Amino acid sequence: MHQLTVVKVGGKIVEDPQSLKTFLKDFSLIAGNKILVHGGGVSATQLAEKLGIKSPMVDGRRITDAETLKVVTMVYAGLVNKNIVAHLQALSLDAVGLTGADMNLIFSIKRPVKDIDYGYVGDVREVNAPVLKELLNQNYVPVIAPITHDGNGQLLNTNADTIAGETAKALAYDFNVRLIYCFDKKGVLLDEKDENSMIQLLTKEEFLQYKEEGIIKDGMIPKLENAFETLASGVKEVILLRASNLNTGEGTYIKWN
Amino acid sequence: MHQLTVVKVGGKIVEDPQSLKTFLKDFSLIAGNKILVHGGGVSATQLAEKLGIKSPMVDGRRITDAETLKVVTMVYAGLVNKNIVAHLQALSLDAVGLTGADMNLIFSIKRPVKDIDYGYVGDVREVNAPVLKELLNQNYVPVIAPITHDGNGQLLNTNADTIAGETAKALAYDFNVRLIYCFDKKGVLLDEKDENSMIQLLTKEEFLQYKEEGIIKDGMIPKLENAFETLASGVKEVILLRASNLNTGEGTYIKWN
Repeated sequence: MHQLTVVKVGGKIVEDPQSLKTFLKDFSLIAGNKILVHGGGVSATQLAEKLGIKSPMVDGRRITDAETLKVVTMVYAGLVNKNIVAHLQALSLDAVGLTGADMNLIFSIKRPVKDIDYGYVGDVREVNAPVLKELLNQNYVPVIAPITHDGNGQLLNTNADTIAGETAKALAYDFNVRLIYCFDKKGVLLDEKDENSMIQLLTKEEFLQYKEEGIIKDGMIPKLENAFETLASGVKEVILLRASNLNTGEGTYIKWN
Repeated sequence: MHQLTVVKVGGKIVEDPQSLKTFLKDFSLIAGNKILVHGGGVSATQLAEKLGIKSPMVDGRRITDAETLKVVTMVYAGLVNKNIVAHLQALSLDAVGLTGADMNLIFSIKRPVKDIDYGYVGDVREVNAPVLKELLNQNYVPVIAPITHDGNGQLLNTNADTIAGETAKALAYDFNVRLIYCFDKKGVLLDEKDENSMIQLLTKEEFLQYKEEGIIKDGMIPKLENAFETLASGVKEVILLRASNLNTGEGTYIKWN
Protein backbone atom coordinates (compact mmCIF):
# COMPACT_ATOMS: atom_id res chain seq x y z
CA MET A 1 0.00 0.00 0.00
CA HIS A 2 1.10 3.56 -0.65
CA GLN A 3 2.21 5.82 2.18
CA LEU A 4 -0.16 8.66 3.14
CA THR A 5 0.65 11.39 5.63
CA VAL A 6 -2.21 13.44 7.05
CA VAL A 7 -0.93 16.62 8.69
CA LYS A 8 -3.02 18.88 10.90
CA VAL A 9 -1.67 22.35 11.47
CA GLY A 10 -3.22 25.07 13.61
CA GLY A 11 -4.03 28.65 12.84
CA LYS A 12 -0.99 30.22 14.46
CA ILE A 13 1.42 28.61 11.99
CA VAL A 14 -0.54 29.15 8.77
CA GLU A 15 -1.67 32.69 9.53
CA ASP A 16 1.83 34.14 9.90
CA PRO A 17 3.39 34.62 6.43
CA GLN A 18 6.91 33.63 7.56
CA SER A 19 6.02 30.51 9.57
CA LEU A 20 3.56 29.50 6.84
CA LYS A 21 6.30 29.61 4.22
CA THR A 22 8.72 27.51 6.30
CA PHE A 23 6.00 25.06 7.26
CA LEU A 24 4.78 24.52 3.69
CA LYS A 25 8.34 24.01 2.47
CA ASP A 26 8.79 21.26 5.12
CA PHE A 27 5.35 19.82 4.28
CA SER A 28 6.24 19.69 0.58
CA LEU A 29 9.28 17.53 1.35
CA ILE A 30 7.21 14.72 2.92
CA ALA A 31 7.47 11.67 0.66
CA GLY A 32 4.35 10.00 -0.75
CA ASN A 33 0.76 11.16 -0.70
CA LYS A 34 -0.18 14.00 1.62
CA ILE A 35 -3.27 15.71 2.98
CA LEU A 36 -3.15 18.98 4.91
CA VAL A 37 -5.92 19.92 7.35
CA HIS A 38 -5.65 23.45 8.70
CA GLY A 39 -7.23 25.78 11.23
CA GLY A 40 -7.42 29.55 11.17
CA GLY A 41 -8.89 30.50 14.50
CA VAL A 42 -6.66 33.48 15.22
CA SER A 43 -7.65 35.32 12.02
CA ALA A 44 -11.29 34.35 12.54
CA THR A 45 -11.25 35.84 16.04
CA GLN A 46 -9.57 39.01 14.75
CA LEU A 47 -12.04 39.44 11.89
CA ALA A 48 -15.02 38.82 14.17
CA GLU A 49 -13.69 41.46 16.59
CA LYS A 50 -13.19 44.00 13.82
CA LEU A 51 -16.77 43.39 12.64
CA GLY A 52 -18.14 43.60 16.17
CA ILE A 53 -19.32 39.98 16.09
CA LYS A 54 -19.17 38.12 19.38
CA SER A 55 -17.91 34.54 19.04
CA PRO A 56 -17.49 33.20 22.58
CA MET A 57 -15.45 30.07 23.23
CA VAL A 58 -16.62 27.27 25.55
CA ASP A 59 -13.94 24.69 26.45
CA GLY A 60 -11.93 25.76 23.43
CA ARG A 61 -14.90 25.37 21.07
CA ARG A 62 -16.33 28.37 19.27
CA ILE A 63 -20.03 29.12 19.62
CA THR A 64 -21.00 29.66 15.99
CA ASP A 65 -24.05 31.81 15.28
CA ALA A 66 -25.03 32.75 11.71
CA GLU A 67 -22.70 35.74 11.58
CA THR A 68 -19.77 33.82 13.08
CA LEU A 69 -20.33 31.05 10.51
CA LYS A 70 -19.88 33.65 7.75
CA VAL A 71 -16.65 34.78 9.37
CA VAL A 72 -15.15 31.29 9.69
CA THR A 73 -16.26 30.37 6.17
CA MET A 74 -14.51 33.46 4.82
CA VAL A 75 -11.35 32.95 6.84
CA TYR A 76 -10.94 29.16 6.76
CA ALA A 77 -12.28 28.31 3.28
CA GLY A 78 -11.26 31.60 1.65
CA LEU A 79 -8.28 33.46 3.05
CA VAL A 80 -6.28 30.73 4.79
CA ASN A 81 -7.12 27.84 2.47
CA LYS A 82 -6.41 29.66 -0.80
CA ASN A 83 -3.17 31.17 0.45
CA ILE A 84 -1.95 27.69 1.37
CA VAL A 85 -3.00 26.32 -2.02
CA ALA A 86 -1.26 29.13 -3.96
CA HIS A 87 1.94 28.62 -1.95
CA LEU A 88 1.89 24.84 -2.46
CA GLN A 89 1.41 25.36 -6.20
CA ALA A 90 4.53 27.55 -6.14
CA LEU A 91 6.31 24.58 -4.51
CA SER A 92 5.15 22.38 -7.41
CA LEU A 93 2.57 20.50 -5.35
CA ASP A 94 -0.76 20.28 -7.20
CA ALA A 95 -2.90 21.35 -4.25
CA VAL A 96 -6.68 21.56 -4.23
CA GLY A 97 -8.42 23.43 -1.43
CA LEU A 98 -11.63 21.84 -0.23
CA THR A 99 -14.29 22.10 2.43
CA GLY A 100 -16.52 19.19 3.38
CA ALA A 101 -19.16 20.52 0.99
CA ASP A 102 -16.89 20.29 -2.05
CA MET A 103 -17.25 16.92 -3.78
CA ASN A 104 -19.43 16.00 -0.79
CA LEU A 105 -16.19 15.29 1.02
CA ILE A 106 -17.28 15.42 4.66
CA PHE A 107 -20.84 14.98 5.76
CA SER A 108 -21.70 16.16 9.25
CA ILE A 109 -24.72 16.86 11.41
CA LYS A 110 -25.39 20.01 13.39
CA ARG A 111 -24.43 19.31 17.00
CA PRO A 112 -27.58 18.61 19.04
CA VAL A 113 -28.28 21.13 21.79
CA LYS A 114 -27.72 19.66 25.26
CA ASP A 115 -26.33 21.95 27.96
CA ILE A 116 -24.80 24.29 25.41
CA ASP A 117 -26.08 25.43 22.01
CA TYR A 118 -22.91 25.50 19.90
CA GLY A 119 -24.87 26.87 16.94
CA TYR A 120 -23.67 25.98 13.44
CA VAL A 121 -21.11 23.43 14.56
CA GLY A 122 -20.85 20.08 12.80
CA ASP A 123 -20.10 16.63 14.17
CA VAL A 124 -18.47 14.52 11.45
CA ARG A 125 -20.50 11.52 10.31
CA GLU A 126 -18.73 10.42 7.13
CA VAL A 127 -15.57 11.17 5.20
CA ASN A 128 -15.86 10.39 1.49
CA ALA A 129 -12.88 8.04 1.20
CA PRO A 130 -13.35 7.06 -2.49
CA VAL A 131 -13.22 10.70 -3.61
CA LEU A 132 -10.10 11.43 -1.54
CA LYS A 133 -8.48 8.22 -2.77
CA GLU A 134 -9.13 9.24 -6.38
CA LEU A 135 -7.63 12.70 -5.81
CA LEU A 136 -4.55 11.18 -4.12
CA ASN A 137 -4.13 8.64 -6.92
CA GLN A 138 -4.12 11.58 -9.35
CA ASN A 139 -1.34 13.12 -7.23
CA TYR A 140 -3.39 16.02 -5.96
CA VAL A 141 -2.68 17.31 -2.46
CA PRO A 142 -6.02 17.98 -0.74
CA VAL A 143 -5.93 20.99 1.58
CA ILE A 144 -8.96 20.74 3.84
CA ALA A 145 -10.55 23.71 5.62
CA PRO A 146 -12.53 22.91 8.79
CA ILE A 147 -15.95 23.60 7.30
CA THR A 148 -18.34 20.73 6.52
CA HIS A 149 -21.96 20.46 5.35
CA ASP A 150 -25.14 18.67 6.31
CA GLY A 151 -26.29 17.77 2.79
CA ASN A 152 -29.21 20.17 3.05
CA GLY A 153 -27.31 23.30 2.06
CA GLN A 154 -26.04 24.19 5.52
CA LEU A 155 -22.33 24.77 6.09
CA LEU A 156 -21.06 23.82 9.56
CA ASN A 157 -17.99 24.91 11.53
CA THR A 158 -16.06 21.74 12.41
CA ASN A 159 -13.08 20.93 14.61
CA ALA A 160 -9.93 20.54 12.49
CA ASP A 161 -8.38 17.89 14.80
CA THR A 162 -11.50 15.77 14.35
CA ILE A 163 -11.44 16.22 10.57
CA ALA A 164 -7.78 15.12 10.47
CA GLY A 165 -8.50 12.06 12.64
CA GLU A 166 -11.61 11.00 10.73
CA THR A 167 -9.86 11.52 7.39
CA ALA A 168 -6.90 9.39 8.50
CA LYS A 169 -9.25 6.63 9.69
CA ALA A 170 -11.34 6.69 6.50
CA LEU A 171 -8.24 6.17 4.34
CA ALA A 172 -6.62 3.49 6.53
CA TYR A 173 -8.05 0.70 4.34
CA ASP A 174 -6.36 2.04 1.21
CA PHE A 175 -3.10 3.55 2.45
CA ASN A 176 -0.43 3.13 5.11
CA VAL A 177 -1.55 6.21 7.02
CA ARG A 178 0.39 8.22 9.54
CA LEU A 179 -1.26 11.18 11.20
CA ILE A 180 0.79 14.15 12.34
CA TYR A 181 -0.65 16.70 14.74
CA CYS A 182 1.42 19.87 14.85
CA PHE A 183 0.95 21.43 18.26
CA ASP A 184 2.55 23.94 20.59
CA LYS A 185 4.87 21.56 22.44
CA LYS A 186 7.78 19.43 21.33
CA GLY A 187 5.76 16.29 22.06
CA VAL A 188 4.19 14.54 25.05
CA LEU A 189 6.19 15.64 28.09
CA LEU A 190 6.59 13.69 31.35
CA ASP A 191 7.31 17.01 33.05
CA GLU A 192 5.34 19.86 31.47
CA LYS A 193 8.09 22.34 32.28
CA ASP A 194 10.93 20.32 30.78
CA GLU A 195 11.10 19.71 27.03
CA ASN A 196 13.90 17.22 27.61
CA SER A 197 11.33 14.96 29.27
CA MET A 198 9.63 14.26 25.95
CA ILE A 199 8.44 10.69 25.39
CA GLN A 200 9.80 9.46 22.06
CA LEU A 201 7.56 6.44 21.73
CA LEU A 202 4.27 5.92 23.53
CA THR A 203 2.36 2.63 23.42
CA LYS A 204 -1.15 2.00 24.68
CA GLU A 205 0.14 0.07 27.70
CA GLU A 206 2.55 2.86 28.64
CA PHE A 207 -0.15 5.48 28.19
CA LEU A 208 -2.52 3.66 30.54
CA GLN A 209 0.26 3.36 33.11
CA TYR A 210 1.26 7.06 32.87
CA LYS A 211 -2.41 8.01 33.15
CA GLU A 212 -2.85 5.88 36.28
CA GLU A 213 0.27 7.39 37.80
CA GLY A 214 -1.05 10.91 37.10
CA ILE A 215 1.97 11.77 34.95
CA ILE A 216 -0.16 12.28 31.82
CA LYS A 217 -3.15 14.39 32.80
CA ASP A 218 -5.69 17.10 31.90
CA GLY A 219 -6.01 18.02 28.21
CA MET A 220 -3.46 15.45 27.08
CA ILE A 221 -5.74 12.57 28.10
CA PRO A 222 -8.53 13.14 25.53
CA LYS A 223 -5.92 14.03 22.89
CA LEU A 224 -4.10 10.74 23.41
CA GLU A 225 -7.30 8.74 23.78
CA ASN A 226 -8.29 10.08 20.35
CA ALA A 227 -4.89 9.08 19.00
CA PHE A 228 -5.30 5.49 20.23
CA GLU A 229 -8.84 5.36 18.84
CA THR A 230 -7.37 6.37 15.47
CA LEU A 231 -4.78 3.59 15.74
CA ALA A 232 -7.55 1.13 16.62
CA SER A 233 -9.15 2.04 13.28
CA GLY A 234 -6.07 1.06 11.30
CA VAL A 235 -3.93 4.20 11.21
CA LYS A 236 -0.29 3.06 11.54
CA GLU A 237 1.06 5.82 13.78
CA VAL A 238 0.13 9.17 15.24
CA ILE A 239 2.86 11.76 15.79
CA LEU A 240 2.60 14.82 18.01
CA LEU A 241 5.24 17.41 17.23
CA ARG A 242 6.05 21.09 17.02
CA ALA A 243 5.42 22.46 13.50
CA SER A 244 9.01 23.69 13.28
CA ASN A 245 10.19 20.08 13.79
CA LEU A 246 8.19 18.71 10.85
CA ASN A 247 11.40 18.47 8.82
CA THR A 248 13.33 16.45 11.44
CA GLY A 249 10.30 14.47 12.56
CA GLU A 250 11.28 14.93 16.20
CA GLY A 251 8.25 14.43 18.40
CA THR A 252 6.23 11.79 20.23
CA TYR A 253 5.39 8.70 18.18
CA ILE A 254 2.22 7.00 19.31
CA LYS A 255 1.83 3.34 18.36
CA TRP A 256 -0.37 0.50 19.43
CA ASN A 257 2.48 -1.58 20.87
CA MET B 1 -19.42 15.71 -28.36
CA HIS B 2 -21.10 16.30 -25.02
CA GLN B 3 -22.99 19.48 -24.28
CA LEU B 4 -21.38 21.90 -21.83
CA THR B 5 -23.02 25.05 -20.48
CA VAL B 6 -20.84 27.68 -18.84
CA VAL B 7 -22.93 30.13 -16.82
CA LYS B 8 -21.62 33.39 -15.43
CA VAL B 9 -23.71 34.98 -12.71
CA GLY B 10 -23.02 38.25 -10.93
CA GLY B 11 -22.85 39.06 -7.28
CA LYS B 12 -26.33 40.55 -6.93
CA ILE B 13 -28.01 37.22 -7.67
CA VAL B 14 -25.80 34.91 -5.61
CA GLU B 15 -25.50 37.16 -2.56
CA ASP B 16 -29.24 37.37 -1.87
CA PRO B 17 -30.41 34.11 -0.21
CA GLN B 18 -33.76 34.05 -2.03
CA SER B 19 -32.55 34.85 -5.56
CA LEU B 20 -29.60 32.49 -5.02
CA LYS B 21 -31.95 29.63 -4.20
CA THR B 22 -34.15 30.22 -7.26
CA PHE B 23 -31.15 30.69 -9.51
CA LEU B 24 -29.39 27.50 -8.38
CA LYS B 25 -32.59 25.51 -8.80
CA ASP B 26 -32.83 26.75 -12.41
CA PHE B 27 -29.11 26.13 -12.93
CA SER B 28 -29.45 22.57 -11.64
CA LEU B 29 -32.07 21.82 -14.30
CA ILE B 30 -29.72 22.58 -17.21
CA ALA B 31 -29.06 19.33 -19.06
CA GLY B 32 -25.53 18.04 -19.59
CA ASN B 33 -22.27 19.23 -18.10
CA LYS B 34 -22.22 22.59 -16.37
CA ILE B 35 -19.74 25.08 -14.97
CA LEU B 36 -20.75 28.06 -12.85
CA VAL B 37 -18.56 31.17 -12.64
CA HIS B 38 -19.69 33.67 -10.05
CA GLY B 39 -18.97 37.17 -8.79
CA GLY B 40 -19.51 38.58 -5.33
CA GLY B 41 -18.69 42.25 -5.64
CA VAL B 42 -21.55 43.59 -3.55
CA SER B 43 -20.54 41.61 -0.43
CA ALA B 44 -16.88 42.43 -1.05
CA THR B 45 -17.66 46.15 -1.14
CA GLN B 46 -19.76 45.86 2.01
CA LEU B 47 -17.08 43.93 3.90
CA ALA B 48 -14.34 46.36 2.79
CA GLU B 49 -16.47 49.28 3.99
CA LYS B 50 -17.10 47.64 7.38
CA LEU B 51 -13.36 47.05 7.77
CA GLY B 52 -12.52 50.60 6.69
CA ILE B 53 -10.64 49.36 3.61
CA LYS B 54 -10.85 51.60 0.55
CA SER B 55 -11.33 49.66 -2.69
CA PRO B 56 -11.91 52.27 -5.41
CA MET B 57 -13.37 51.24 -8.78
CA VAL B 58 -11.98 52.51 -12.10
CA ASP B 59 -14.18 51.80 -15.15
CA GLY B 60 -15.96 49.08 -13.19
CA ARG B 61 -12.69 47.40 -12.20
CA ARG B 62 -11.66 47.20 -8.57
CA ILE B 63 -8.25 48.55 -7.55
CA THR B 64 -6.95 45.65 -5.45
CA ASP B 65 -4.33 46.45 -2.83
CA ALA B 66 -3.09 43.78 -0.38
CA GLU B 67 -5.95 44.35 2.08
CA THR B 68 -8.59 44.38 -0.66
CA LEU B 69 -7.17 41.12 -2.02
CA LYS B 70 -7.76 39.53 1.39
CA VAL B 71 -11.35 40.79 1.33
CA VAL B 72 -12.16 39.45 -2.15
CA THR B 73 -10.43 36.13 -1.38
CA MET B 74 -12.56 35.76 1.75
CA VAL B 75 -15.81 36.75 0.03
CA TYR B 76 -15.44 35.15 -3.41
CA ALA B 77 -13.51 31.96 -2.56
CA GLY B 78 -14.96 31.54 0.93
CA LEU B 79 -18.41 32.92 1.66
CA VAL B 80 -20.03 33.05 -1.79
CA ASN B 81 -18.34 30.02 -3.32
CA LYS B 82 -18.96 27.61 -0.43
CA ASN B 83 -22.57 28.68 0.00
CA ILE B 84 -23.19 27.96 -3.67
CA VAL B 85 -21.46 24.57 -3.38
CA ALA B 86 -23.45 23.55 -0.29
CA HIS B 87 -26.72 24.53 -1.98
CA LEU B 88 -25.85 22.64 -5.18
CA GLN B 89 -25.01 19.56 -3.09
CA ALA B 90 -28.48 19.83 -1.56
CA LEU B 91 -29.84 19.83 -5.14
CA SER B 92 -27.89 16.59 -5.77
CA LEU B 93 -25.28 18.24 -7.99
CA ASP B 94 -21.78 17.14 -6.99
CA ALA B 95 -20.28 20.63 -6.97
CA VAL B 96 -16.67 21.50 -6.30
CA GLY B 97 -15.71 25.08 -5.56
CA LEU B 98 -12.42 26.19 -7.05
CA THR B 99 -10.23 29.21 -7.57
CA GLY B 100 -7.63 29.39 -10.30
CA ALA B 101 -4.99 28.27 -7.77
CA ASP B 102 -6.76 24.98 -7.01
CA MET B 103 -5.53 22.20 -9.31
CA ASN B 104 -3.60 24.98 -11.08
CA LEU B 105 -6.85 25.71 -12.89
CA ILE B 106 -6.29 29.26 -14.12
CA PHE B 107 -2.87 30.78 -14.51
CA SER B 108 -2.73 34.55 -14.78
CA ILE B 109 -0.21 37.38 -14.64
CA LYS B 110 -0.43 40.50 -12.53
CA ARG B 111 -1.70 43.28 -14.76
CA PRO B 112 1.23 45.49 -15.81
CA VAL B 113 1.04 49.07 -14.58
CA LYS B 114 0.34 51.53 -17.40
CA ASP B 115 -1.79 54.59 -16.63
CA ILE B 116 -3.40 52.86 -13.66
CA ASP B 117 -1.96 50.47 -11.08
CA TYR B 118 -4.76 47.97 -10.56
CA GLY B 119 -2.74 46.20 -7.85
CA TYR B 120 -3.30 42.47 -7.37
CA VAL B 121 -5.42 42.00 -10.48
CA GLY B 122 -4.79 39.09 -12.82
CA ASP B 123 -5.01 38.85 -16.59
CA VAL B 124 -5.82 35.27 -17.58
CA ARG B 125 -3.11 33.50 -19.55
CA GLU B 126 -4.20 29.86 -19.47
CA VAL B 127 -7.18 27.77 -18.40
CA ASN B 128 -6.26 24.18 -17.54
CA ALA B 129 -8.65 22.43 -19.93
CA PRO B 130 -7.51 18.82 -19.24
CA VAL B 131 -8.24 19.19 -15.51
CA LEU B 132 -11.68 20.71 -16.10
CA LYS B 133 -12.46 18.05 -18.71
CA GLU B 134 -11.55 15.32 -16.22
CA LEU B 135 -13.78 16.87 -13.52
CA LEU B 136 -16.68 17.19 -15.98
CA ASN B 137 -16.24 13.61 -17.18
CA GLN B 138 -16.51 12.52 -13.54
CA ASN B 139 -19.78 14.49 -13.37
CA TYR B 140 -18.53 17.16 -11.02
CA VAL B 141 -19.93 20.67 -11.37
CA PRO B 142 -17.04 23.13 -11.05
CA VAL B 143 -18.02 26.37 -9.30
CA ILE B 144 -15.31 28.91 -10.06
CA ALA B 145 -14.58 31.96 -7.90
CA PRO B 146 -12.93 34.91 -9.68
CA ILE B 147 -9.53 34.51 -8.00
CA THR B 148 -6.55 33.18 -9.96
CA HIS B 149 -2.83 32.73 -9.24
CA ASP B 150 0.50 33.54 -10.86
CA GLY B 151 2.23 30.24 -10.07
CA ASN B 152 4.58 31.97 -7.63
CA GLY B 153 2.24 31.90 -4.66
CA GLN B 154 0.39 35.12 -5.42
CA LEU B 155 -3.42 35.12 -5.62
CA LEU B 156 -4.91 37.64 -8.07
CA ASN B 157 -8.36 39.22 -8.30
CA THR B 158 -9.72 38.42 -11.76
CA ASN B 159 -12.74 39.50 -13.78
CA ALA B 160 -15.45 36.83 -13.68
CA ASP B 161 -16.73 37.60 -17.22
CA THR B 162 -13.21 37.00 -18.53
CA ILE B 163 -12.87 33.73 -16.60
CA ALA B 164 -16.19 32.51 -18.02
CA GLY B 165 -15.18 33.44 -21.58
CA GLU B 166 -11.70 31.92 -21.35
CA THR B 167 -13.07 28.76 -19.73
CA ALA B 168 -15.67 28.36 -22.49
CA LYS B 169 -12.99 28.84 -25.17
CA ALA B 170 -10.55 26.40 -23.52
CA LEU B 171 -13.19 23.64 -23.51
CA ALA B 172 -14.52 24.26 -27.04
CA TYR B 173 -12.30 21.49 -28.46
CA ASP B 174 -13.80 18.86 -26.20
CA PHE B 175 -17.42 19.91 -25.75
CA ASN B 176 -20.28 21.64 -27.57
CA VAL B 177 -20.04 24.75 -25.44
CA ARG B 178 -22.65 27.40 -24.90
CA LEU B 179 -21.84 30.36 -22.73
CA ILE B 180 -24.58 32.14 -20.78
CA TYR B 181 -23.99 35.56 -19.28
CA CYS B 182 -26.64 36.47 -16.73
CA PHE B 183 -26.93 40.24 -16.67
CA ASP B 184 -29.29 42.97 -15.57
CA LYS B 185 -31.32 43.27 -18.80
CA LYS B 186 -33.58 40.87 -20.65
CA GLY B 187 -31.08 40.74 -23.50
CA VAL B 188 -29.61 43.08 -26.14
CA LEU B 189 -32.18 45.84 -26.65
CA LEU B 190 -32.60 47.96 -29.80
CA ASP B 191 -34.19 50.62 -27.59
CA GLU B 192 -32.63 50.66 -24.12
CA LYS B 193 -35.91 51.80 -22.58
CA ASP B 194 -38.07 49.12 -24.15
CA GLU B 195 -37.61 45.47 -23.16
CA ASN B 196 -39.91 44.48 -26.02
CA SER B 197 -37.19 45.63 -28.41
CA MET B 198 -34.95 42.71 -27.44
CA ILE B 199 -33.02 41.08 -30.29
CA GLN B 200 -33.66 37.33 -30.20
CA LEU B 201 -30.82 36.32 -32.50
CA LEU B 202 -27.77 38.39 -33.28
CA THR B 203 -25.24 37.42 -35.96
CA LYS B 204 -21.87 39.02 -36.58
CA GLU B 205 -23.13 40.75 -39.73
CA GLU B 206 -26.15 42.19 -37.92
CA PHE B 207 -23.99 43.32 -35.02
CA LEU B 208 -21.63 45.22 -37.33
CA GLN B 209 -24.61 46.86 -39.03
CA TYR B 210 -26.30 47.86 -35.72
CA LYS B 211 -22.98 49.22 -34.50
CA GLU B 212 -22.51 51.31 -37.65
CA GLU B 213 -26.06 52.64 -37.32
CA GLY B 214 -25.37 53.61 -33.69
CA ILE B 215 -28.20 51.39 -32.40
CA ILE B 216 -25.81 49.21 -30.38
CA LYS B 217 -23.46 51.48 -28.47
CA ASP B 218 -21.41 52.21 -25.34
CA GLY B 219 -20.79 49.32 -22.95
CA MET B 220 -22.62 46.80 -25.13
CA ILE B 221 -19.97 47.07 -27.86
CA PRO B 222 -17.02 45.51 -25.92
CA LYS B 223 -19.40 42.96 -24.36
CA LEU B 224 -20.58 41.80 -27.78
CA GLU B 225 -17.12 42.00 -29.34
CA ASN B 226 -15.97 39.62 -26.58
CA ALA B 227 -18.92 37.34 -27.36
CA PHE B 228 -17.97 37.15 -31.04
CA GLU B 229 -14.32 36.56 -30.13
CA THR B 230 -15.51 33.61 -28.03
CA LEU B 231 -17.50 32.26 -30.99
CA ALA B 232 -14.43 32.66 -33.22
CA SER B 233 -12.64 30.31 -30.81
CA GLY B 234 -15.18 27.54 -31.28
CA VAL B 235 -17.87 28.23 -28.68
CA LYS B 236 -21.23 27.39 -30.30
CA GLU B 237 -23.38 30.19 -28.91
CA VAL B 238 -23.31 32.99 -26.38
CA ILE B 239 -26.55 33.92 -24.63
CA LEU B 240 -27.20 37.15 -22.75
CA LEU B 241 -30.18 36.92 -20.42
CA ARG B 242 -31.65 37.98 -17.12
CA ALA B 243 -30.86 35.44 -14.37
CA SER B 244 -34.59 35.01 -13.62
CA ASN B 245 -35.08 33.85 -17.23
CA LEU B 246 -32.48 31.07 -17.02
CA ASN B 247 -35.30 28.52 -16.80
CA THR B 248 -37.10 29.72 -19.96
CA GLY B 249 -33.89 30.57 -21.82
CA GLU B 250 -35.41 33.84 -23.02
CA GLY B 251 -32.65 36.22 -24.00
CA THR B 252 -30.41 37.28 -26.87
CA TYR B 253 -28.71 34.41 -28.71
CA ILE B 254 -25.44 35.41 -30.30
CA LYS B 255 -24.20 33.23 -33.14
CA TRP B 256 -21.65 33.54 -35.88
CA ASN B 257 -24.18 33.48 -38.71
